[in-house]
Amino acid sequence: MPLSGMLRSRQERRQVLQTFYSEGFFKGATVMQQPIDLLIYPRWLVPVVPAGVVLEDYALAVEQGRIVAVLPAREARERFVARETETLETHLLMPGLVNLHCHAAMNLLRGIADDLPLMSWLLEHIWPAEAKHVSHRFVHDGTLIACVEMLRSGVTCFNDMYFFPEAAAEAVNTSGIRAALGLTVLEFPGAYARDADDYFAKGLAVHETLRGRPRLSFCLAPHAPYSVSDRSFERVAVLANELHLPMHIHVHETRDEIAQSLKEHGIRPLERLHRLGLVESKLIAVHAVHLGAKEIAQLAACDASVVHCPTSNLKHGSGIAPLAALLEAGVNVGLGTDGAASNSRFDLFEEMRLAALLAKGSEEKATAVNAHRALAMATIGGAQALGLGDEIGSLEPGKAADVCAVDFSALHLSPCYDPVSHLVYAVSGDDVSHVWVDGKARVKNRVLVDLDVEALKAMATGWGAKIGGQGSGKPDP
Amino acid sequence: MPLSGMLRSRQERRQVLQTFYSEGFFKGATVMQQPIDLLIYPRWLVPVVPAGVVLEDYALAVEQGRIVAVLPAREARERFVARETETLETHLLMPGLVNLHCHAAMNLLRGIADDLPLMSWLLEHIWPAEAKHVSHRFVHDGTLIACVEMLRSGVTCFNDMYFFPEAAAEAVNTSGIRAALGLTVLEFPGAYARDADDYFAKGLAVHETLRGRPRLSFCLAPHAPYSVSDRSFERVAVLANELHLPMHIHVHETRDEIAQSLKEHGIRPLERLHRLGLVESKLIAVHAVHLGAKEIAQLAACDASVVHCPTSNLKHGSGIAPLAALLEAGVNVGLGTDGAASNSRFDLFEEMRLAALLAKGSEEKATAVNAHRALAMATIGGAQALGLGDEIGSLEPGKAADVCAVDFSALHLSPCYDPVSHLVYAVSGDDVSHVWVDGKARVKNRVLVDLDVEALKAMATGWGAKIGGQGSGKPDP
Repeated sequence: MPLSGMLRSRQERRQVLQTFYSEGFFKGATVMQQPIDLLIYPRWLVPVVPAGVVLEDYALAVEQGRIVAVLPAREARERFVARETETLETHLLMPGLVNLHCHAAMNLLRGIADDLPLMSWLLEHIWPAEAKHVSHRFVHDGTLIACVEMLRSGVTCFNDMYFFPEAAAEAVNTSGIRAALGLTVLEFPGAYARDADDYFAKGLAVHETLRGRPRLSFCLAPHAPYSVSDRSFERVAVLANELHLPMHIHVHETRDEIAQSLKEHGIRPLERLHRLGLVESKLIAVHAVHLGAKEIAQLAACDASVVHCPTSNLKHGSGIAPLAALLEAGVNVGLGTDGAASNSRFDLFEEMRLAALLAKGSEEKATAVNAHRALAMATIGGAQALGLGDEIGSLEPGKAADVCAVDFSALHLSPCYDPVSHLVYAVSGDDVSHVWVDGKARVKNRVLVDLDVEALKAMATGWGAKIGGQGSGKPDP
Repeated sequence: MPLSGMLRSRQERRQVLQTFYSEGFFKGATVMQQPIDLLIYPRWLVPVVPAGVVLEDYALAVEQGRIVAVLPAREARERFVARETETLETHLLMPGLVNLHCHAAMNLLRGIADDLPLMSWLLEHIWPAEAKHVSHRFVHDGTLIACVEMLRSGVTCFNDMYFFPEAAAEAVNTSGIRAALGLTVLEFPGAYARDADDYFAKGLAVHETLRGRPRLSFCLAPHAPYSVSDRSFERVAVLANELHLPMHIHVHETRDEIAQSLKEHGIRPLERLHRLGLVESKLIAVHAVHLGAKEIAQLAACDASVVHCPTSNLKHGSGIAPLAALLEAGVNVGLGTDGAASNSRFDLFEEMRLAALLAKGSEEKATAVNAHRALAMATIGGAQALGLGDEIGSLEPGKAADVCAVDFSALHLSPCYDPVSHLVYAVSGDDVSHVWVDGKARVKNRVLVDLDVEALKAMATGWGAKIGGQGSGKPDP
């Protein structure tokens, strides 16, 4: 029951807030000013937890990469003396967004084959392009570009499924973003691995080598029911329990996938995963477009998570996922962009907006999935799915300082009657001005702190020239 | 049959292109260089008509506000000597977008009441706020802000429905954008007019005074079937024929609207409009979410136009319009943002993308409404609906030079395999760098040529403070 039904009345919220902020970390320690690393004074502070709250004249205090307090600005000035102070007079401060499903390196393939059915896109375009070009270098470069795009648009953590996770880890390290890297499993051979056993061996070796590195976690990532065998799924289930890893898998994305499973296995994919031991709290079910009421109840009952990828589901013609019903049932839902070859806008603000809009439109109910709910999915929902609900996803004392500031001074955000409404319905990733991960600034006033965007553009263009002719234009239908 | 079925084969397209550009305006006049106002050399040039074409190493030649040639860059250098040359090495040049439905002044009310059902939004929030605040000044200021937002995001013409059209005309004149202003008709009293007769009188007076002004045209704009009487509709039909004006009307937006019409009139709204003489080629039917197959055929048969407003239709929970079926039937479709209180992103690129995505998702068919088709709706489709198909909507010799350039050098557009795919699926209004209307530059390198954005922001914020408290935050459901 993570996001639903919390703090329904105004009074209840006020009470929780009071307890929350007055019995804080530094109670009784206000006589001497405490030195800390960073104090941020925004116009608005939206902590996400507690839900539905917008704070004005508050500050965020950060020490050694952690949030130490969320408190009234006046108190902050009394209690703390900061090595760095950031005053953001026209900005909204919020937790960094969690992109719960992507294939980051595919930013190098954005727009390579649009307006095509999913299977033709995958079998005739994406997999051949990957077979030809994917390498350690491709994954490093593509992931680095994706990390920078995500950081600049307010994403501080992403959940990846791709090849050469050790190359992705390098890019994550260089960019300073946080990531859960998928240990991908597929049955057939590719540039990265020969067969399922080889995928397992390589994934486990990477996990063994890199576990415990800062800002890095892992998921087991069996690709999909149609590309992974029963034997491999069983092994995934065993490893997930042994290693305490979430299981990140595409499931019930299209009607074809379900029909094929019924034909080959006599059961629907989710039932097959259930029998193989994967339908449990560590499951991160990506897409989940086609679900019956019993399947929704099953996901809720076992505390599984769903990744809603609205743009990708529309673009591939997969359909419209039953988001309102999933939330109603109490399923934890996060949001994902999917890979940039499935969604050319790599902007989680756009997914947040589309998630809310699409739920309203498909339910014909304007009250379905309001702005606060959409924001919670894009932050704490994603964090909980990754098993990082105590670490990130909200601005709460004790959590990592993964923070994003949105500049509300732009003409398209003026006037502002309700900042959270603007955040979801009006803001895009382009409005993000500052981003911190683990308390370290990665974007300041829209400029990358450590990396050279021009060099990254040249890198992207170079890959483009290598992969395919540019500017071909596509014929009308 | 305006957009469908054109030039299906590659060969056919090549032939048309050849005729189109070689037998151009200046055949045989190449010995002396002709002096003209402006030559633009983009990386790509997408004329929209002919459909499906992407030109590289081409130039656009402009003289006295008109396009005089679209020709290979080499030829352009030989034929013309321009008073101003714009070399846009990383840009795509295209016709300015046509926003076929908005209530521009409502930018002052953006986000004032979200996550509410349409009728509660309208009756309990929007109409009371309008009753209290709408004035000549409100409409002027709100429209001016909207004009600037539109220009900066590539819209060069919009179709407006609001009060005080004379105030909107001032803003249009100041900003340099092109507009079709609605002569609004409603039965009930407001700050602008007492009753339907008063609406007609005021609208006709404005039309009489301002007709023929540069960049200005007019529509009759009876608000909706539920707010306009039979008598007024009949008068609209007569005036439309006398004055040769399009009729701009909300219709079949929600199921409730249809149910109410069945109850009150015994027929569906479109049938009522048909009987009253409004369903003909000058009809611009806004929303048209709920349509049966016969109604779609009826709209096609009489050459009426539909404005698809995907974000607004989702946000109000109205539903998902049958876009693919409308296009299939040959109905001319344009795109609209609707007012900023119905769609907080006032960005027609977003509507273009969402129109394509939503058609694919709701039809479960990834090939539904491809990128070229979406682009045509947002340009020539809108122009044709307004009766301006010979004036704007494509880059063709003889048309007004309403032009927009998109900068493709950004990291999120690199690499680029298909520029039109990027245009629809990856670009946002923020990527627009240059805009010309009637050949006059209005935006250059993302900067407004004539207007001060800071002053406009202050104006917006001032109205915000007057209209309602800011930063209230809204409770969770």
